[in-house]
Amino acid sequence: MKAFLAEARQAEHYPQHFLVNGVMQPNPETPERIAALKAGALRAGCEMVAPREFGMEAIGAVHTPAYLAFLERAWERWQHIPDAAGAVTPNIHPPHRHAGYPASLVAQAGFHMADASCPIAGGTWQSALWSAWSALSAAEALLGGVQSAYALCRPPGHHAGTDLAGGFCYLNNSAIAARYLQARWPKIAILDVDLHHGNGTQDIFWTDPTVFTASIHCDPRRFYPFFWGYAEEEGEGPGKGFNLNLPLPRGSGDAEFLAALDTALARIEHFAPDALVVALGLDAFEGDPFGGLGVTTGGYGRIGAEIARRLPVPTLLVQEGGYLCPELGDNLTAFLGGSSGSGG
Amino acid sequence: MKAFLAEARQAEHYPQHFLVNGVMQPNPETPERIAALKAGALRAGCEMVAPREFGMEAIGAVHTPAYLAFLERAWERWQHIPDAAGAVTPNIHPPHRHAGYPASLVAQAGFHMADASCPIAGGTWQSALWSAWSALSAAEALLGGVQSAYALCRPPGHHAGTDLAGGFCYLNNSAIAARYLQARWPKIAILDVDLHHGNGTQDIFWTDPTVFTASIHCDPRRFYPFFWGYAEEEGEGPGKGFNLNLPLPRGSGDAEFLAALDTALARIEHFAPDALVVALGLDAFEGDPFGGLGVTTGGYGRIGAEIARRLPVPTLLVQEGGYLCPELGDNLTAFLGGSSGSGG
Repeated sequence: MKAFLAEARQAEHYPQHFLVNGVMQPNPETPERIAALKAGALRAGCEMVAPREFGMEAIGAVHTPAYLAFLERAWERWQHIPDAAGAVTPNIHPPHRHAGYPASLVAQAGFHMADASCPIAGGTWQSALWSAWSALSAAEALLGGVQSAYALCRPPGHHAGTDLAGGFCYLNNSAIAARYLQARWPKIAILDVDLHHGNGTQDIFWTDPTVFTASIHCDPRRFYPFFWGYAEEEGEGPGKGFNLNLPLPRGSGDAEFLAALDTALARIEHFAPDALVVALGLDAFEGDPFGGLGVTTGGYGRIGAEIARRLPVPTLLVQEGGYLCPELGDNLTAFLGGSSGSGG
Repeated sequence: MKAFLAEARQAEHYPQHFLVNGVMQPNPETPERIAALKAGALRAGCEMVAPREFGMEAIGAVHTPAYLAFLERAWERWQHIPDAAGAVTPNIHPPHRHAGYPASLVAQAGFHMADASCPIAGGTWQSALWSAWSALSAAEALLGGVQSAYALCRPPGHHAGTDLAGGFCYLNNSAIAARYLQARWPKIAILDVDLHHGNGTQDIFWTDPTVFTASIHCDPRRFYPFFWGYAEEEGEGPGKGFNLNLPLPRGSGDAEFLAALDTALARIEHFAPDALVVALGLDAFEGDPFGGLGVTTGGYGRIGAEIARRLPVPTLLVQEGGYLCPELGDNLTAFLGGSSGSGG
């Protein structure tokens, strides 16, 4: 399988902190994740391929012009503020979107950043852009005829909405790739197996019946992203019934995850997509620093195999979360091995 | 004039920090403000009066039950979180209000706190409650027949919405008092002369034609609260035309402020209120640490005198912002002196 990665560009973004219960903690979404995931992809037999530049058209099909202009220029503008912090940091967040779009950078940051875990500094925009281009390059490979491809997207994307960064995410790589695939395949399913609910992806396709979104994740009642990921969220308008959330109790292991996966796959089979995007977070792992769920390395092999067996359509694997622990690469190897039928 | 203050209770709230351009700075909304304002009130001839307890009915007429429950219990709940910060601090803010109400305290904090300048710690609830009760006690004095009364409200209130804290504000004292006055006087005007736009007050009465809200403030394009305070915000539905914003260019002095005041007073005269609430921020002062506008101490005398001359209705003065500087108390003395006709 081809694995797409712009290693140097995607490593430029190096966030230092994120806020946990009001205390700044080291940010786990570090560039070191790339090496672990790359090693895991290579062990699974992947061929590493450099992505190409795609420009902004496919990204602009998902994100708003104001948001993209903000992301691109925020760090340069921030540096003109005397005594400012080492990364763009908001201090006021409007409680609704019809409050007007402010001129102030600090206020734009509050408009476009849902939380305190998406700092913007030097390199952030370049890494986000190349992460999206890795997803697009992998999608292009699918359109070119391969059955599956893996995009080592970092930073991840599934918490990013049309005009909102959050949860280590800036550009929604999975959503951008899904839209791009629609040029050939009208019906796309996005299956999100990340520990955290894919709230950005859900939001982007909330009223859209052409992209079925499903997410298996830790119950958001007391887990990020808190406000979304509940079973009753089914989409709205023409998109009603095209979003599926399967929250799992904290600590759930392989059996519970595979049971939820069976439900998700049945719904996606019924939708009968032309192609599949897997938002491939690996942080539901029992040893992940987030400690939310208890999926094992073997479990990832079964998850990958089950998805491939049940949905034999062109499949794009887009890296989402999964944080540094000794088994991070092994979990990717297991998933990819299961996915390609050589493991599980 | 009677001046209402529960000095010890309103001093319990002692916020340590607020976020400026991503950097924590000492929070200027300190209990030391009380002494300066009290001295200014006494110099103006005020008689200090202790407020009475009012229970929650009048406060619940403005704020939602979920918000009040959050404010009351947040600090106690926060202390059960291991390694948490010294004040309740959100780390995720929903971009709209229809995202569902979360069970998690951190998420509830993000739902109810618009920004990083309204930390909740021990004493915050008691001080906010007694600040509101000071406003209600002063309103009760008005209902009892006095022409004017002053409530030394601290913490301030005008940035607080129905279910949202922000900008050092938790309970909207001016709005709570205005609603309370409506038991006798159906038409109330709230005139906000604070340096910052009274966005919470505007929001609370946005669709309400019985309370005319006017605010003179520093242009929010590059000044807190950024998202609100623009001239085109006039209210909605039945409230359309009952909100007036008069943003002033940064650095504007007495002449510009008095010209805007003339406009506001003409509109309020046309509305013909039965009673007036002045949201009396003193931070438009030229020496205030926020440095947004250039009103002088003499200017405050003229502002107080002009309001009293043009609107000879029962008038409640509710303290909002105004931060420690040598002239803080003098500015209050000047305003109250002008207001009661003895200065200006």
